[in-house]
Amino acid sequence: MDDIADAVGLNKATVYHYYASKSLILYDIYKRAADFTVAAVHDDPTASARETIYQFTRRLLIGIASNIEQAAVYFQEGPYITEWFTEDQVAYIRQAEAQVYEHIRDVIDRGIASGEFYECDSHVLALGYIGMTLGSYRWLRPHGRRTAEEIAVEFSTALLRGLIRDEKVRAETPLGVDPAELPGKPGAAPAR
Amino acid sequence: MDDIADAVGLNKATVYHYYASKSLILYDIYKRAADFTVAAVHDDPTASARETIYQFTRRLLIGIASNIEQAAVYFQEGPYITEWFTEDQVAYIRQAEAQVYEHIRDVIDRGIASGEFYECDSHVLALGYIGMTLGSYRWLRPHGRRTAEEIAVEFSTALLRGLIRDEKVRAETPLGVDPAELPGKPGAAPAR
Repeated sequence: MDDIADAVGLNKATVYHYYASKSLILYDIYKRAADFTVAAVHDDPTASARETIYQFTRRLLIGIASNIEQAAVYFQEGPYITEWFTEDQVAYIRQAEAQVYEHIRDVIDRGIASGEFYECDSHVLALGYIGMTLGSYRWLRPHGRRTAEEIAVEFSTALLRGLIRDEKVRAETPLGVDPAELPGKPGAAPAR
Repeated sequence: MDDIADAVGLNKATVYHYYASKSLILYDIYKRAADFTVAAVHDDPTASARETIYQFTRRLLIGIASNIEQAAVYFQEGPYITEWFTEDQVAYIRQAEAQVYEHIRDVIDRGIASGEFYECDSHVLALGYIGMTLGSYRWLRPHGRRTAEEIAVEFSTALLRGLIRDEKVRAETPLGVDPAELPGKPGAAPAR
């Protein structure tokens, strides 16, 4: 707590006024990250599965790039949260993580059921998708060579072209949105 | 060191006989993991880019599943290795990581140059590939619902179908190997 007070330029008593313990600071970081990720889920059953996955990827990567430290703390402290948090706090985080995983899996399953996607193991691919996107906190930087939006286009294009059956959709609109609206393309619309 | 001696059932002097310090134990785990991953690179320029990526994925996931603890230590301690290791040790690990990343990026670039793959950002996709495959240490289990070989097929099929241009190759042999040789298929050949 001394180090934290030093870093934020407050005295320790003031830090304790906001957070009764160090573990509550960690939980606050965790809860914000989990709540952000759950809020990035917008399951609109009228949207195609491909657009749902692309828009979720886009929201996630923009969020990670804008708060790399939060994402890094989340993943680096992951193995130890049962030591720091109460059972209810752990349950809250686990429930948020399950919700995000199930969203991805269910959208892939929806795409398979409608014939939009190839048959595949949606469980395994949802876990791979999470590793690919959330794992980007290791190297994603707010002012890197490519923006978070451009990286979302690259990831989603490769993954969705791998899932989409229809050759024309796959070649022309793998993200389910008008290509003119994508970042980095001439005439791109402002970010939504 | 007391805890380690207890866990392996030796006295502390014997542990010190093998490892002069705790950081050398951690470095040994790190070096084994890094050497294993570099050894999984077999760049055969006569193989297709898709087969090279599939075979690398297969070797990586089998290796991770057979030594989950090693992979977990590797990723969990990653942010702290500069505190534990000498400069030469850190340089050895960083060099191995760069070699693996460059292998993936170069194979994707080879596939783009030959017309096997779509144009894409090989740098970003190599990073995404690493997150998807190496990140599996979080959930891959040696006796899980799907074997490491089956998961390698799922990941590689989705990713490579996303990259391959040719519609027939993409539908029939996205992994660059005879489908009868794949795990989980009737008449599959023994694992190579």
